[in-house]
Amino acid sequence: MKTYAEMTCEELTKEVEQLKKEYHQFQKMELRLNMSRGKPCQEQLNLSMHMMDVLDSNSDLTCEDGTDCRNYGALTGIDEARELLGDMMENNPKDIIIYGNSSLNVMYDTVSRAYTHGIMGSTPWCKLDRVKFLCPVPGYDRHFAITEYFGIEMIPVPMTPTGPQMDLVEKLVAEDATIKGIWCVPKYSNPQGFSYSDETVRRFARLKPAAPDFRIFWDNAYGMHHLYDEKQDYLIEILAECKRAGNPDLVYKFASTSKITFPGSGIAALATSPNNMEDICNQLRRQTIGHDKVNQLRHVRFFGDIHGMVEHMRKHADILRPKFELVENTLEEELGGLGIGTWTEPLGGYFMHFESLPGCAKAIVARAKKAGVVMTGAGATWPYGKDPNDNSIRIAPSYPSLQDLGVAARLFALCVKLVSAEKLLAEKK
Amino acid sequence: MKTYAEMTCEELTKEVEQLKKEYHQFQKMELRLNMSRGKPCQEQLNLSMHMMDVLDSNSDLTCEDGTDCRNYGALTGIDEARELLGDMMENNPKDIIIYGNSSLNVMYDTVSRAYTHGIMGSTPWCKLDRVKFLCPVPGYDRHFAITEYFGIEMIPVPMTPTGPQMDLVEKLVAEDATIKGIWCVPKYSNPQGFSYSDETVRRFARLKPAAPDFRIFWDNAYGMHHLYDEKQDYLIEILAECKRAGNPDLVYKFASTSKITFPGSGIAALATSPNNMEDICNQLRRQTIGHDKVNQLRHVRFFGDIHGMVEHMRKHADILRPKFELVENTLEEELGGLGIGTWTEPLGGYFMHFESLPGCAKAIVARAKKAGVVMTGAGATWPYGKDPNDNSIRIAPSYPSLQDLGVAARLFALCVKLVSAEKLLAEKK
Repeated sequence: MKTYAEMTCEELTKEVEQLKKEYHQFQKMELRLNMSRGKPCQEQLNLSMHMMDVLDSNSDLTCEDGTDCRNYGALTGIDEARELLGDMMENNPKDIIIYGNSSLNVMYDTVSRAYTHGIMGSTPWCKLDRVKFLCPVPGYDRHFAITEYFGIEMIPVPMTPTGPQMDLVEKLVAEDATIKGIWCVPKYSNPQGFSYSDETVRRFARLKPAAPDFRIFWDNAYGMHHLYDEKQDYLIEILAECKRAGNPDLVYKFASTSKITFPGSGIAALATSPNNMEDICNQLRRQTIGHDKVNQLRHVRFFGDIHGMVEHMRKHADILRPKFELVENTLEEELGGLGIGTWTEPLGGYFMHFESLPGCAKAIVARAKKAGVVMTGAGATWPYGKDPNDNSIRIAPSYPSLQDLGVAARLFALCVKLVSAEKLLAEKK
Repeated sequence: MKTYAEMTCEELTKEVEQLKKEYHQFQKMELRLNMSRGKPCQEQLNLSMHMMDVLDSNSDLTCEDGTDCRNYGALTGIDEARELLGDMMENNPKDIIIYGNSSLNVMYDTVSRAYTHGIMGSTPWCKLDRVKFLCPVPGYDRHFAITEYFGIEMIPVPMTPTGPQMDLVEKLVAEDATIKGIWCVPKYSNPQGFSYSDETVRRFARLKPAAPDFRIFWDNAYGMHHLYDEKQDYLIEILAECKRAGNPDLVYKFASTSKITFPGSGIAALATSPNNMEDICNQLRRQTIGHDKVNQLRHVRFFGDIHGMVEHMRKHADILRPKFELVENTLEEELGGLGIGTWTEPLGGYFMHFESLPGCAKAIVARAKKAGVVMTGAGATWPYGKDPNDNSIRIAPSYPSLQDLGVAARLFALCVKLVSAEKLLAEKK
């Protein structure tokens, strides 16, 4: 079998003709499929429907410490929820604040607080001429949207299968005191599904940032979100490692149950050092009297304990695993050996990443859209939406049904072939 | 009957002796009562327990427009909730954003957004040398805590039974472009329980602020919170009046169901003009993908419609009314005719206000605390906690049981008498 690059002009011309025919067949199907966002599908949401039963009008909505969950109070969350999320996040419950339904909101507020009031006594970022963040790429567009909104300059750092290029990260943060943070999705990263190696985590915990108010924004969004029972990624817990390394205040760690129970109605959390906690609570108590404790209690009663949550996540895996495998198999069948793209095969999380030939990503996504399959916008995985190589495409297989996903994956592969063949042909001519 | 001021030194000395005996009797009771915060009592919370039954695992959690409340999305809230809160707030549902569980959080975020990004294109407040807010006094300590936290200079404006002194408000906002806002609790105000008159609302809607980014922060916390069926305060709706006056963008209006269902687990909302909405949503979409829609749906299903909510509020009134009346009667019995204080008798809301002789408030609250009854800290009703007259005390009768409240009110009245008599005696000597 020849790769596309090895084909003659004639062969490529024929191939393009054939692909266009297939593409028109797809267009006739008038598809309306969406592989753009990391949205759980309906079957996944149904897994948590019994969470709607654990509290009713006969329930005692009182915590063990006597807190009435219905009333005001409990700024950092109820003890029971801090304990459950402590087990989930591998952190001491005392180091955890339970928030509302969105960890994105917590991350936004964390950047906003640093911008308006600084971190642990440092100059507020709004008073500085320049503030920069490191952004491992490809990465998560909603992270980049927050820093962009606050006028924070984003510096791309290449991702590798073991995490961000640490040589570069270490060098940059040590040299440049205007670098105040780095966005990390350490486990089953968005979009590649890579997990940081032990060495990477160790090096993160030992960073020597020039800025005392430098923080690692550690978005552990997929801590429990394995696809397989036997093959799972384990990470060194970052807060503990920072403490051991003598840098206890270096990290803000975020997580939520959004992709465990209901994305719209989960609970979010932040884990960090006692110093950071004090700093945060000093602001938080002006912002709210407390978050939704009834929903915290609902989550605690639903799962019982961390084992309950693990068992629950196996059911999610059973729904998601075939979807990931279907896309992987389709890509292998359709694109294997053609030399026009590579893709990741993660063990968890919500995304796969496709790397096309340079300069092809936008055209591929546009082609797919024209035939009714919406992908995440090409470029979204880079700060400012600008992928300099135009070769990064995020694939989100969770939401469509298996049947729809099969069609969408085949169309996507077809678009990859068509765009790649046309590009190679144009180059040869 | 003589007022304390009319008493001779001898009479006052005798009175103080007698009062001290009574005070020691109270101390022996080892009370632990709290009249400090506007917290609903358990009976009130029980009124909403059936809200825990309206959704279960058999419920359809889909909105009429097809939105699955469990999943991501619906940044401004579900239509059904916007409609219900539209009726509650007397605003067009399209002008409403439904948030999470705390309107305080919405207010904080509104100030924070203006601080970081300005309002509708104006200079962010963090880039200005001075930013000021008008603060009707006595007022709400959590409002003042937000503006204080952002370094906003607070200028007290006296409250009257018809609202803030509008001559002063009009003059100040017209003259000083660094004045960017005013905190208002227009209905059953915190702490006096005053409601703004028609003239006051009309004048607010016709303000001519020097600052184009001046906004009225209209915290309609007690819109539905009447104590009586027949005697209720009706206000001119401020957004509509602003629109009629040609100042559509002048107001941010806040409300929540915190004191309607559960304080910890209600839903909050902001109503404002389309221009402000656009400005806010431009920020909000970076901060979150959406708030808790299941809880929004739960509220909608629980109340059905605004009539259901009105009927529900009558039950709250039945619990609160006797408490307010008990305190009012106790104060009248104990303090009537003594000339040592005046108090408000509101038709709704959560607070009464006691105005002591100048220089007595702190001592009265301290005395009460020493005998086991916690009041809101004296001074809390003023910016920076500094009441220049030291005569403002907020009374929150909602939380204690009727029996406890009777004891607490009598102790409070006793402390007023004791502190006042001692003060007058010292002055006479």
